[in-house]
Amino acid sequence: MSTSTSTFSVIGLGSMGMGAAKSAVSAGLTTYGFDLNPEAMRSFKEHGGLAPATLLEATKGADVVLLMLVNSNQCDQVLFGAHGIAASLRPNTVIILGSTTSASYAKALNEKLQEMNLRMIDAPVSGGAAKANTGELSIMASGPEQAFVDCGPLFDAISAKLYRVSDTVGGGASVKMINQLLAGVHIAAAAEAMALGVKAGLAPEMLYEIISNSAGSSWMFQNRVPKILSGDYSPNSMVDIFVKDLGIVLDAGKEFKFPLPISASAHQQFLSASAAGHGLEDDSAVIKVYPGITLPEAKSK
Amino acid sequence: MSTSTSTFSVIGLGSMGMGAAKSAVSAGLTTYGFDLNPEAMRSFKEHGGLAPATLLEATKGADVVLLMLVNSNQCDQVLFGAHGIAASLRPNTVIILGSTTSASYAKALNEKLQEMNLRMIDAPVSGGAAKANTGELSIMASGPEQAFVDCGPLFDAISAKLYRVSDTVGGGASVKMINQLLAGVHIAAAAEAMALGVKAGLAPEMLYEIISNSAGSSWMFQNRVPKILSGDYSPNSMVDIFVKDLGIVLDAGKEFKFPLPISASAHQQFLSASAAGHGLEDDSAVIKVYPGITLPEAKSK
Repeated sequence: MSTSTSTFSVIGLGSMGMGAAKSAVSAGLTTYGFDLNPEAMRSFKEHGGLAPATLLEATKGADVVLLMLVNSNQCDQVLFGAHGIAASLRPNTVIILGSTTSASYAKALNEKLQEMNLRMIDAPVSGGAAKANTGELSIMASGPEQAFVDCGPLFDAISAKLYRVSDTVGGGASVKMINQLLAGVHIAAAAEAMALGVKAGLAPEMLYEIISNSAGSSWMFQNRVPKILSGDYSPNSMVDIFVKDLGIVLDAGKEFKFPLPISASAHQQFLSASAAGHGLEDDSAVIKVYPGITLPEAKSK
Repeated sequence: MSTSTSTFSVIGLGSMGMGAAKSAVSAGLTTYGFDLNPEAMRSFKEHGGLAPATLLEATKGADVVLLMLVNSNQCDQVLFGAHGIAASLRPNTVIILGSTTSASYAKALNEKLQEMNLRMIDAPVSGGAAKANTGELSIMASGPEQAFVDCGPLFDAISAKLYRVSDTVGGGASVKMINQLLAGVHIAAAAEAMALGVKAGLAPEMLYEIISNSAGSSWMFQNRVPKILSGDYSPNSMVDIFVKDLGIVLDAGKEFKFPLPISASAHQQFLSASAAGHGLEDDSAVIKVYPGITLPEAKSK
């Protein structure tokens, strides 16, 4: 098989999947896409993507299927549900699991797919919609070497950095989990710090400026605090994503019987925010759980 | 008074104070120094500093006295103890409080010094011994404008960045507190993340490399995890410093009646590390509280 004539499918055209699928088209790859949202299908088609009416048509001739779905339930639905595709894929097709899932889910899925003569790479992505759009995602991936060779053109098209964590499925998910542990704790800590600063009477803009240039800074502090300062909590990534991702971290702690007190504390803050009705807002809205302070308000337009 | 002919005193020649004092000497300022450790006094003298035998001699002619001490107790001792200097300083002398203390301590100290016709700037520093040695500290300071003018030559000599937070004493301490909240949580989170990664069977060096370039990164992750990888916990900054500094954060939470669950969780981890006998090790030794994993060992020499 020559990879240059391969056919690729991207299932799930949300903010991340759309960026990846369009990047594949832009790179000249034969790329099918599928999403239940007709608006997403129209946008992908306008970009030059192949957008058939059914999931089956979008994948039956594929050499590589990239799943860019929200969680493991959606992946199971797409692969094994009533209209699932796994049974109709050609032998040796590579499934790339681009979603953030637990390592144990990725491993179990790999076993199931192997029994069906399918191959798999777990490849959670990082970088947000902006990096997805420019084909510059960071990907933390693991799986057998030949599968990486066969997926090479797609990975080249959608990522700036491809970390090959190991030859064994599950490694990519484990690394992503550690990244999400830190990302989630750092967002919750940024919120707690800004909230205490406001309570102490400090000007939030000044605080952001100083901390961004000090030892207390983090990637998330620099990225999310501007949302708080603007008072605009329209989501880049939602509170409920960290309810899920820190949940995966804590599930791993239970599986390994390993204590994770800081992660657990941060998870409770995201749960509080979600319970208060902020689950679909930007994850920086976790600052709204701190009571008795006045946060910057959105400028009226 | 012409600031160019002023006399400066630095009290406390530990790793931070020594760097600041030597930087002042290198900048051509008339600089006295004092520490109870004779080795520190010898080193300062060799660098061209004025190193008299007593605290009183080191400060009685000073226009500006910089206190670089471990905590507020030491500051009280130096100023008001049995051999305290406050009563013998010239009127209008500026005391710079370079230690990390609570804002309420800084404010109370300012009132006490004002009654003695002395002035004060609270100016906690950041950047570590390396930046202190090169005269490139970051300083978060607050106090009256004329005091900043009078301290100008000293601030110029020891800092790369001087943030003037407010005209009211206590603002510098508040900003430093917020920085320490984040710094402490980020170290504890880095430890938790690396510990879980080891438990999950990931190679710690690879994990460090990937996370350093991902959204989970922080200034502290990049700075402290190499200590963990080297297995060398000789202190740059000690576990017990964060027992103190996160303690200041939590005291502020009590004073304001404000919840700080993430900070409290991180504080417990530093307390656990200190209780286990690691209080004088590098603060990255907080990872040693995670049980049942094998951390990288120091290379034998």
